[in-house]
Amino acid sequence: MGLDTDLEKIPPHLLEKDDPVFEFNRYVVEATAEFAVAFKPNLAFYESLGPDGWRSLRKTVKFIRRNYPGIFLIADAKRGDIGNTSEKYARTFFDYKAAGLDFDAVTLSPYMGQDSVVPFLAFPGKWLVVLALTSNPGANDFQNARLETGEYVFEKVIKTCASWTTTDRLMFVVGATRANSLVKIRQWVPDHFLLVPGVGAQGGSLAEVAEYGMNRECGLLVNSSRAIIYADHSPDFAAFVRVKAIEIQQEMEKLLTKKGIL
Amino acid sequence: MGLDTDLEKIPPHLLEKDDPVFEFNRYVVEATAEFAVAFKPNLAFYESLGPDGWRSLRKTVKFIRRNYPGIFLIADAKRGDIGNTSEKYARTFFDYKAAGLDFDAVTLSPYMGQDSVVPFLAFPGKWLVVLALTSNPGANDFQNARLETGEYVFEKVIKTCASWTTTDRLMFVVGATRANSLVKIRQWVPDHFLLVPGVGAQGGSLAEVAEYGMNRECGLLVNSSRAIIYADHSPDFAAFVRVKAIEIQQEMEKLLTKKGIL
Repeated sequence: MGLDTDLEKIPPHLLEKDDPVFEFNRYVVEATAEFAVAFKPNLAFYESLGPDGWRSLRKTVKFIRRNYPGIFLIADAKRGDIGNTSEKYARTFFDYKAAGLDFDAVTLSPYMGQDSVVPFLAFPGKWLVVLALTSNPGANDFQNARLETGEYVFEKVIKTCASWTTTDRLMFVVGATRANSLVKIRQWVPDHFLLVPGVGAQGGSLAEVAEYGMNRECGLLVNSSRAIIYADHSPDFAAFVRVKAIEIQQEMEKLLTKKGIL
Repeated sequence: MGLDTDLEKIPPHLLEKDDPVFEFNRYVVEATAEFAVAFKPNLAFYESLGPDGWRSLRKTVKFIRRNYPGIFLIADAKRGDIGNTSEKYARTFFDYKAAGLDFDAVTLSPYMGQDSVVPFLAFPGKWLVVLALTSNPGANDFQNARLETGEYVFEKVIKTCASWTTTDRLMFVVGATRANSLVKIRQWVPDHFLLVPGVGAQGGSLAEVAEYGMNRECGLLVNSSRAIIYADHSPDFAAFVRVKAIEIQQEMEKLLTKKGIL
């Protein structure tokens, strides 16, 4: 469940509240936690509100931790910088004492290479989610370019990053709109979890993602944001959000049953 | 001047202040603004303090805007995401009404391609600073890989991004430790500004950067952070910071004179 909470898109009656972003998130989380394995706040939406946005994010994380202890929390931040800076970003998202946040995972851009990624491994048990082949059209500009070795750039990213740590610390982002690449990706990293955004508003098909991307234990974290959280704008929006979440959860359940995982 | 302000590295007497990060920045800016063309806060250092860090950043930006109106302000954030998300990041750093910040430029990671970069162009007069060949060892993992066309990945990034906008909206990051690549880069983008970090703590040579990277109008924004701002830790630290800034400014002045630009 992506929490891309946008003041311009949430039900207007919430704008009267003290902290509309947190209020919206609270309703969405309460309505859907039962059908979700993870929540993924998108940092841009919080940052664009300045310190208040960071406060809403912190309240959201605390609310989920207190009420839904089994839920996995991903900071969708796409960070990555030289070593001493990545270390600070790692603390931001993983070290509660730093910024009051204790995410389980953070999304990272691999462009700056090994020393921009490994500082995030300093926090035991936390996950790194590295961009590989993203759902947007721009993925074709650089990720899909072919190297002289015959590999794609995103292929080199996957294979190289996989050599830096174990499968219980690292996932890759593969867009739901890239189902045809999932077959190859599963040959390179059969056991890694894949975080798959782009189902819903971006047009990716859950059935295709499952067909080509699932491994024996599922190995997929499929994300949907806008298609669920903005399902309705009335004061009863949470009921509609819940229905949308159930729809996707049931579709996933069918696919897991078909694959013999459930 | 990089403002990588770290509570663990600033002079300890400042820790007693209400907002030590802002106090440190204020002293550094007052001591060096006369010798600098730009200030570049590194977002990781502010984020890692949560909402308080964002407040210190906002105070710093406001302080510089009010007292040093000619100074150029760069948010070193290395952002980049799908279109609707990059639009939010652009607002964060460029639109004062959003997060209380009005930077002139923001650093961007190109990994996600065109639709992750162009939303930042929606703000007239603002600059995009795209990572090309960075100063850290990890630059060799992906940026320096060769494509089947014979181009390097960072070469394709430079040439492709240069086709999206004009030279008065776009710079590239090229690390000071990559002086030998500057000759080639200047053939591809003779007129673009280059933001060059890595002089000082990371070991890059200003003389080599100037030799290979300057164009007829200079075309370089050379950044130093740690080597200047942590020059001293006594209550008189600002005087030492000023001396360090003057040293680098004078070295730059000599190089500009040698090249016939001053």
